[in-house]
Amino acid sequence: MKLNTNYLNLAESYLFSTIAKKVNAYQAANPDKQVLRLGIGDVTLPLAPVVIEAMHQAVDEMSKKETFKGYGPEQGYAFLKDSVQGYYARMGVTLEGDEIFISDGAKSDCGNILDIFDTDNVVLVPDPVYPVYVDTNVMSGRKILYMNANAENGFLPMPDDSVHADIIYICSPNNPTGAAYTLDQLKVWVAYAKKNNAVILYDAAYECFTGEGVARSIFQIEEAKTCAIEICSFSKTAGFTGTRCGYTVVPKALMFDGVSCNKLWLRRQTTKFNGVSYIVQRGAAAVFSEEGEKQIQANLAIYQNNARIIAQTMDELGIFYTGGKHSPYIWLQCPNGMKSWDFFDLLLNEIQVVGTPGSGFGKNGEGFFRLTAFGSEQTTKEACARIKKLLSK
Amino acid sequence: MKLNTNYLNLAESYLFSTIAKKVNAYQAANPDKQVLRLGIGDVTLPLAPVVIEAMHQAVDEMSKKETFKGYGPEQGYAFLKDSVQGYYARMGVTLEGDEIFISDGAKSDCGNILDIFDTDNVVLVPDPVYPVYVDTNVMSGRKILYMNANAENGFLPMPDDSVHADIIYICSPNNPTGAAYTLDQLKVWVAYAKKNNAVILYDAAYECFTGEGVARSIFQIEEAKTCAIEICSFSKTAGFTGTRCGYTVVPKALMFDGVSCNKLWLRRQTTKFNGVSYIVQRGAAAVFSEEGEKQIQANLAIYQNNARIIAQTMDELGIFYTGGKHSPYIWLQCPNGMKSWDFFDLLLNEIQVVGTPGSGFGKNGEGFFRLTAFGSEQTTKEACARIKKLLSK
Repeated sequence: MKLNTNYLNLAESYLFSTIAKKVNAYQAANPDKQVLRLGIGDVTLPLAPVVIEAMHQAVDEMSKKETFKGYGPEQGYAFLKDSVQGYYARMGVTLEGDEIFISDGAKSDCGNILDIFDTDNVVLVPDPVYPVYVDTNVMSGRKILYMNANAENGFLPMPDDSVHADIIYICSPNNPTGAAYTLDQLKVWVAYAKKNNAVILYDAAYECFTGEGVARSIFQIEEAKTCAIEICSFSKTAGFTGTRCGYTVVPKALMFDGVSCNKLWLRRQTTKFNGVSYIVQRGAAAVFSEEGEKQIQANLAIYQNNARIIAQTMDELGIFYTGGKHSPYIWLQCPNGMKSWDFFDLLLNEIQVVGTPGSGFGKNGEGFFRLTAFGSEQTTKEACARIKKLLSK
Repeated sequence: MKLNTNYLNLAESYLFSTIAKKVNAYQAANPDKQVLRLGIGDVTLPLAPVVIEAMHQAVDEMSKKETFKGYGPEQGYAFLKDSVQGYYARMGVTLEGDEIFISDGAKSDCGNILDIFDTDNVVLVPDPVYPVYVDTNVMSGRKILYMNANAENGFLPMPDDSVHADIIYICSPNNPTGAAYTLDQLKVWVAYAKKNNAVILYDAAYECFTGEGVARSIFQIEEAKTCAIEICSFSKTAGFTGTRCGYTVVPKALMFDGVSCNKLWLRRQTTKFNGVSYIVQRGAAAVFSEEGEKQIQANLAIYQNNARIIAQTMDELGIFYTGGKHSPYIWLQCPNGMKSWDFFDLLLNEIQVVGTPGSGFGKNGEGFFRLTAFGSEQTTKEACARIKKLLSK
């Protein structure tokens, strides 16, 4: 028996466990202090009433022989795929039903999609980066190249024509930097992918936070259907981080050497996956109803307002940042040339505000810091007031 | 870009689509005839009341800010892992909590577990076989050896010491044959695995159908903890085929070259998976309550009685079969040396009973036929009466 020794090449990440340890130690030593957490990338608002109602109904269906559901289609029920199709149609993107694959979440798809690609491909990821892109490729032994995202390019790296890549990761709006590409910028990436006969894995998990002027889907560029796969999720859109549902779009026009990626992914999913819970799919479909969209937008507006509050604070302090506008993340430059962890310690010890040190996401993250808009308005305002007071000194 | 060309080596399976086509064609030509389906491996009884109640409660928790659940642990909530741990304890198997990984189902785990093993390993599968074992290994380009399961060995092949294998698949009670190993037989397999430094992937999806005299878990053999992984599911136990929950046990004592499989699987799941829906996990945990176990057993008793009815029919007809006792499957020898598809056509055309041709599961399946106990008692009785009448002629 030989184990997959690529796993031994994985770097251990202590980012969130170190944060937890530091916060716990501080709180134990200072039980009277109120710690405000703006570090976590998880939603806090409950599911929308339409989703709750749809899931109660689905649970009831499972309780009666006449309406009970056994195995469903691995790719998802038509009622949900139709809803996703309609959602894309409203942003001007035409998809066929069997180009949409419902899954238990973007993280699963992000890892599993690599199954259909040879391990002998060169991968291009931005730095700083969502660690899953790197780790899933290390696990299968692919060569990884990094492109620098930094203050100079506004954390939106553009292609370097002297570099060849086969698999290109783009996350926009970005985690962790909040930076979002325009359609014109993505067109340059699509042209680069076509020139390199590469595939773009486009992570659209935060598309619901976008407004005018930035891209929502890479398929807003028609040619992207020949070089891109888009992965999205209900996690941030509808607060499904603990409910688990996502979807991946693999266009039929995406072919390499005459082989359809759509067919390979279908085969992967029908072989190694058995579909998402019927109850969860019913909840997800409710998101797209007229009332559902209203309720979802009301929740998103709260997070968007939090992001605005944090961004305004940075504006007032004259601190450079990306995100905040089309994203729940604010990626800020630590003041006075401080390092990420030093700034973390400063905020925790002086004003009891918890964020995420940017250096945990890659070398270009050093000197940067991530705050998130997923807290309550009250927490966000209080944290910003403390930050303003501390840094105005 | 190079695709994973191993996918091109996958055999297309037309088994269930051919069945559907034939049944649809027959029904279209004979709209007045009542077709009885005993072919499908899917449950038909609704979820137990305790499960329904637990899921309604969990949905309500998701509707309130105070009880809302975001990201949960990728390996599953402690409340469910504790329940699984207790379930194993009651069959005399001691597991640690972090040896249990909750997932969205046995099929996912069955495919994904291969991630932690090198592609340069030799795989041993029985023939006939659940196609997922074969296809998932073809996808990663592993060499596959087959062992013959046939009437001579009661469809329970034992190790051949002249053959070396690294990854051994055992499904007991078996799909499709219903045959179940005794603990003494499994001990021989454990010894073989140890001698070969191999891992056994033990598919226990049908363990809930076992009675006295056969194994429920491979970990009833203590030494198996150093050479086996067990994959199980709520699909058949609690009718979760459309609700989606399973679990995989990776003992900490399972090491190769000093590397812990438990740690690799933990890393795989935390990187490429984000846990099962909180709502579904609450439903699954309810299965293990005192009232839950009663309700689940009542449902299983209906399927077990159906299996008994079919087995009795075969006994009366003097037809050789395996399964029926510790399994919802009855794997019977087609009468008069008929081939599997000929018998399928005979049953469909003459008495409108649908089963599954054994040849669809491998070469040793030729001449055999699978009936399942997942229909209603009425359907099962009527189908058996028709079979008896037809074959007694």
